[in-house]
Amino acid sequence: MSRIDGRTPEQLRPVTIERGWSKHAEGSVLVSFGDTKVLCTASLTEGVPRWRKGSGEGWVTAEYAMLPRSTNTRGDRESVKGRIGGRTHEISRLIGRSLRAVVDTKSLGENTVVLDCDVLQADGGTRTAAITGAYVALADAVAWAQRRKLIKATRQPLTGTVSAVSVGIVAGVPLLDLCYEEDVRAETDMNVVCTGDGRFVEVQGTAEATPFDRGELNALLDLATAGCEQLTAIQRAALEATA
Amino acid sequence: MSRIDGRTPEQLRPVTIERGWSKHAEGSVLVSFGDTKVLCTASLTEGVPRWRKGSGEGWVTAEYAMLPRSTNTRGDRESVKGRIGGRTHEISRLIGRSLRAVVDTKSLGENTVVLDCDVLQADGGTRTAAITGAYVALADAVAWAQRRKLIKATRQPLTGTVSAVSVGIVAGVPLLDLCYEEDVRAETDMNVVCTGDGRFVEVQGTAEATPFDRGELNALLDLATAGCEQLTAIQRAALEATA
Amino acid sequence: MSRIDGRTPEQLRPVTIERGWSKHAEGSVLVSFGDTKVLCTASLTEGVPRWRKGSGEGWVTAEYAMLPRSTNTRGDRESVKGRIGGRTHEISRLIGRSLRAVVDTKSLGENTVVLDCDVLQADGGTRTAAITGAYVALADAVAWAQRRKLIKATRQPLTGTVSAVSVGIVAGVPLLDLCYEEDVRAETDMNVVCTGDGRFVEVQGTAEATPFDRGELNALLDLATAGCEQLTAIQRAALEATA
Amino acid sequence: MSRIDGRTPEQLRPVTIERGWSKHAEGSVLVSFGDTKVLCTASLTEGVPRWRKGSGEGWVTAEYAMLPRSTNTRGDRESVKGRIGGRTHEISRLIGRSLRAVVDTKSLGENTVVLDCDVLQADGGTRTAAITGAYVALADAVAWAQRRKLIKATRQPLTGTVSAVSVGIVAGVPLLDLCYEEDVRAETDMNVVCTGDGRFVEVQGTAEATPFDRGELNALLDLATAGCEQLTAIQRAALEATA
Amino acid sequence: MSRIDGRTPEQLRPVTIERGWSKHAEGSVLVSFGDTKVLCTASLTEGVPRWRKGSGEGWVTAEYAMLPRSTNTRGDRESVKGRIGGRTHEISRLIGRSLRAVVDTKSLGENTVVLDCDVLQADGGTRTAAITGAYVALADAVAWAQRRKLIKATRQPLTGTVSAVSVGIVAGVPLLDLCYEEDVRAETDMNVVCTGDGRFVEVQGTAEATPFDRGELNALLDLATAGCEQLTAIQRAALEATA
Amino acid sequence: MSRIDGRTPEQLRPVTIERGWSKHAEGSVLVSFGDTKVLCTASLTEGVPRWRKGSGEGWVTAEYAMLPRSTNTRGDRESVKGRIGGRTHEISRLIGRSLRAVVDTKSLGENTVVLDCDVLQADGGTRTAAITGAYVALADAVAWAQRRKLIKATRQPLTGTVSAVSVGIVAGVPLLDLCYEEDVRAETDMNVVCTGDGRFVEVQGTAEATPFDRGELNALLDLATAGCEQLTAIQRAALEATA
Repeated sequence: MSRIDGRTPEQLRPVTIERGWSKHAEGSVLVSFGDTKVLCTASLTEGVPRWRKGSGEGWVTAEYAMLPRSTNTRGDRESVKGRIGGRTHEISRLIGRSLRAVVDTKSLGENTVVLDCDVLQADGGTRTAAITGAYVALADAVAWAQRRKLIKATRQPLTGTVSAVSVGIVAGVPLLDLCYEEDVRAETDMNVVCTGDGRFVEVQGTAEATPFDRGELNALLDLATAGCEQLTAIQRAALEATA
Repeated sequence: MSRIDGRTPEQLRPVTIERGWSKHAEGSVLVSFGDTKVLCTASLTEGVPRWRKGSGEGWVTAEYAMLPRSTNTRGDRESVKGRIGGRTHEISRLIGRSLRAVVDTKSLGENTVVLDCDVLQADGGTRTAAITGAYVALADAVAWAQRRKLIKATRQPLTGTVSAVSVGIVAGVPLLDLCYEEDVRAETDMNVVCTGDGRFVEVQGTAEATPFDRGELNALLDLATAGCEQLTAIQRAALEATA
Repeated sequence: MSRIDGRTPEQLRPVTIERGWSKHAEGSVLVSFGDTKVLCTASLTEGVPRWRKGSGEGWVTAEYAMLPRSTNTRGDRESVKGRIGGRTHEISRLIGRSLRAVVDTKSLGENTVVLDCDVLQADGGTRTAAITGAYVALADAVAWAQRRKLIKATRQPLTGTVSAVSVGIVAGVPLLDLCYEEDVRAETDMNVVCTGDGRFVEVQGTAEATPFDRGELNALLDLATAGCEQLTAIQRAALEATA
Repeated sequence: MSRIDGRTPEQLRPVTIERGWSKHAEGSVLVSFGDTKVLCTASLTEGVPRWRKGSGEGWVTAEYAMLPRSTNTRGDRESVKGRIGGRTHEISRLIGRSLRAVVDTKSLGENTVVLDCDVLQADGGTRTAAITGAYVALADAVAWAQRRKLIKATRQPLTGTVSAVSVGIVAGVPLLDLCYEEDVRAETDMNVVCTGDGRFVEVQGTAEATPFDRGELNALLDLATAGCEQLTAIQRAALEATA
Repeated sequence: MSRIDGRTPEQLRPVTIERGWSKHAEGSVLVSFGDTKVLCTASLTEGVPRWRKGSGEGWVTAEYAMLPRSTNTRGDRESVKGRIGGRTHEISRLIGRSLRAVVDTKSLGENTVVLDCDVLQADGGTRTAAITGAYVALADAVAWAQRRKLIKATRQPLTGTVSAVSVGIVAGVPLLDLCYEEDVRAETDMNVVCTGDGRFVEVQGTAEATPFDRGELNALLDLATAGCEQLTAIQRAALEATA
Repeated sequence: MSRIDGRTPEQLRPVTIERGWSKHAEGSVLVSFGDTKVLCTASLTEGVPRWRKGSGEGWVTAEYAMLPRSTNTRGDRESVKGRIGGRTHEISRLIGRSLRAVVDTKSLGENTVVLDCDVLQADGGTRTAAITGAYVALADAVAWAQRRKLIKATRQPLTGTVSAVSVGIVAGVPLLDLCYEEDVRAETDMNVVCTGDGRFVEVQGTAEATPFDRGELNALLDLATAGCEQLTAIQRAALEATA
């Protein structure tokens, strides 16, 4: 039995990573997971937040947002509402933590990288697309800073790669990389962030309708691990493209 | 090798659940996980938020907060800062989702329960203590409403029980129910929410320092499952106390 | 004719002061005036706000808040509303002023004490309970700092003691220490803050329904002065308990 | 020994009440207590806030604010800061309560009056000038509404008159109606709101430097009572001017 | 003497209008004026704001924003700052007014169109690009609603077309369609919004450094009028493309 | 055919400029354009905002606001709403830019002038009255600082004078200095800011109902230029009054 868009359960949507999207940012990527499109820019500046000054260590952080009409019905702007919602906060923090897991802040030196992940079009999996694209933008920004000798350490500031994918159980079947329609109907929903060598950075599983047992959890983890392996290859190919 | 406070790796801290703590709330519990103390009140009112009116279904939500000096150094009040931080948002949402996993909103009828979880003293595991205590406060509020015939359904609004515990890897050893000092030094940190029958509602694992592999993940899930089983028993005993 | 809870007009509710309630704060007190329970913590830190730097003088301030379900019907959190209400502001300022009246900021040195007064359960007189409890928490924090030589002055930073009580006219009768039900029905309501030697720090009388004349004002002041005298004795006993 | 501006201790500053200051408001007064100038407008509209609908009763409320350069050094605008300070809140509430003390909300009918008291120039006593002026603006707005038959009750909505004055102890001497320089140096500061028949609506005494005793309190109350008597006469004269 | 990018003074940058950019919005356009790229989406919904209900008339409004790294140095998000800046407000209002100038709100019926103009990359002239693109998105949304019979009027809701361009005096020379580097060095800067038939909707000229005289003003208006004529042709071509 | 208030199309309302209105501010003016009354205070302080420190240059900025009942129906306070509206922002920025056009910030030295323009009564043209009055308050503040040697430059910090007036087309007729009733009915509305020597600082024309053509634009500019010439003379007379 095939999925809404004809995929098999263990199949990713078409994933594209377009580097150098913006003329201003030190790293910038337009990442697509099917119809989900996220613009990820990496802004690298000298200096660190006050609480980190003099430590010799850098800082990496992220901000996630959705354009008001990236979704099917228009959402109010958080700038107009005057406050950031819980979901936005949660995802921004997740992206930042995920990237920091592969950053050696000592080798980064006292530089700050802000990853802005703005969803231009949403169709499920925006946070996992954001992490996957932001890693590539980060890699570009770090390389840029190394070329300009802003980063002087001989050790690589990036200790590995990181990608992310969603998995879920829909009508009893574990599926990889849910699109919006699947996500809405999922009984269980999980976001998994992996390093390029197959270890976990984040595992966030939520029973939307029915609690899940250990067997289901294992099936989802298997799917996610395999999905991240493919995303890692796509990231590598994108980064080698202009090498 | 024993832990900071002399526990074995698979041992919970002393857990107490004190019901009827407040004279005003429909359900109220002071829950302690060691030195972590959280006041959980359940406020049940007739009616539901506007978007749910006329559905015949109820609503359960939660708000988490820490008193400014519940921690070792005083934190600024979010009311004074004028905005709720990302961590507060994230935990409030987690508590709400966890409880809704065992609520049959149809049987609840058009009633709303707000769970306020205020941390009076923090020593690690505040969110898991909050979920564990809030379940008991919720059960008391539901029973109160049933006695007053505010809830008329013959089917139980609560379809099960829910509890939560933290686990983590400290110096390479998987540990159950981390206190603050352990939490700070953990390489990996996981919060697990289980139903009384041993299934998962939420699994949130984060690599704080080093990514974790499937074996470590399994060890943590084993510890958490066993911990929640004990917490379920403590909840049951508390609820039977005055029965 | 006796009162709702059986007291005589000039009788306080049972008052208890429990010191050392929190393991983190430099001073902490759970104070009860009958069913009104306020957790008062004193956080003493080195340094003063910018506008006071280099003056050699310390600073004492206070923040008051109510837990959402400390009252009979749940109130919205001010952190969620994004702004502090007028009543909260007013009471925080009153508590701060009342305590500063007995603090010699020069002897305190460039240290800051923040008194957090969080109402866990409300039944009238929360601000007067807060002042009475906060004084004891402040005394404990000052003693703590003196033991650690953070305060070096040989003169005592506390020049006296301070306590507070509410009085009011209900059905024409002047009453001491109103509980919530009395407070709601009071024609005139007054909060009086006194030093231990019987002088006034604050007198705030408000005609809720009917303006009051000089005779009524005098009767209320007599009641309040006597009430504060008793509270002073209770504070002294609490502070001597572990001496 | 005379005061800074040559007054005797029991002497008011020159007080003027200029009615009909604004062409738009239903009642408007520019009140001066010496160099303190407050523009008080009364806006009367049909209808009441939601929580009062259907009660048949009206509502009176007040908002106080200072122009940024009404004071000696410019203050930041609260609209720019995005929040109202504690002092502003406190005074707005005081003005509202003071006026409601002489309003029969039943006779007012379901109408709302908002008193805006904007300090154009400040030299001490802004809140007492505001109350004294706002009463006259309120009286004009009520008369306006009666002429237009918006208020239909035969009983007068205003049950009396209200005025206010500050008193304080400066260098040991009780003084009436403090100007800014006196206010800054006052050991004790009190604001008293009286009805035209000499009873008290509000008594707010604060020890700024030294606690005060019963004798001092009595001396201040004597001064304030006499001061309000004169203000009542000035209000009456102003209201009769165009009668 | 040619310009930074080789253009003549009266030459536009390459302008492209890409329709149907988003799969969700009723109308959506990616408009480029050289390196300035703005995503304009038109969200059409049934119903109007409360103050317009029952009028039979529709409403058109706009919101403008810049992505944080659309510019050369990253700007803070207004959602994070919690308030919208003056420039953002000003431009949003300008876009809304400009479009309403060609909308017959009666023929639109009780429908609302929100134009979101999000700057993906900025290189001067973002507001004029936004207006020019938003008009096309609006036209598509109106056509969409007409096909679905949401708009029933036989008269066209769009009474004309609207486009906008910037002009300015740089080093004494009047220039059309300034890029960022020119804009920064302009002595006078003007934004002109024209209808397709060559009349003015908005003329906003500002002396950045030196006041300008009537002759300079006339030269700028001539340039702008000719520029808008070209933009009108580009808009028409874009709208006819799939017709 | 004469106007609502009997003026000819090219006639200003009676304009008065009352200097020295406030005892605190370095410059202060109550300006009236007919029934529009704006209090303009200039606060001059040593020092500049952080981003300008060490530049040797000063800064001039403005804040505009309306009292809640300056208008026909009461508006909510922006301080109470917690945010400044777009219109307020826009006008504050316009006033600041207009004044900076005649300020030589180098000669001003590292001093800051804040112009507060508070509308006490509104009847159209509040922004143009504010600019016209603020210029005089600024001139007084600069003179004050020169007398006190706070400004040491020998060159005049003010390089010219600035005034502003509104013009508009009502019922097809171009009119100078619109009052509120005219403004509401205007088809086109323009605010023009001129220097004393007749050049333009700002030209902001808006088609409220019907786009306007070049001929109409020219007619409005003619009217505005003549109006500003008269306002310049009134400013000069006011400044010479006490010379």
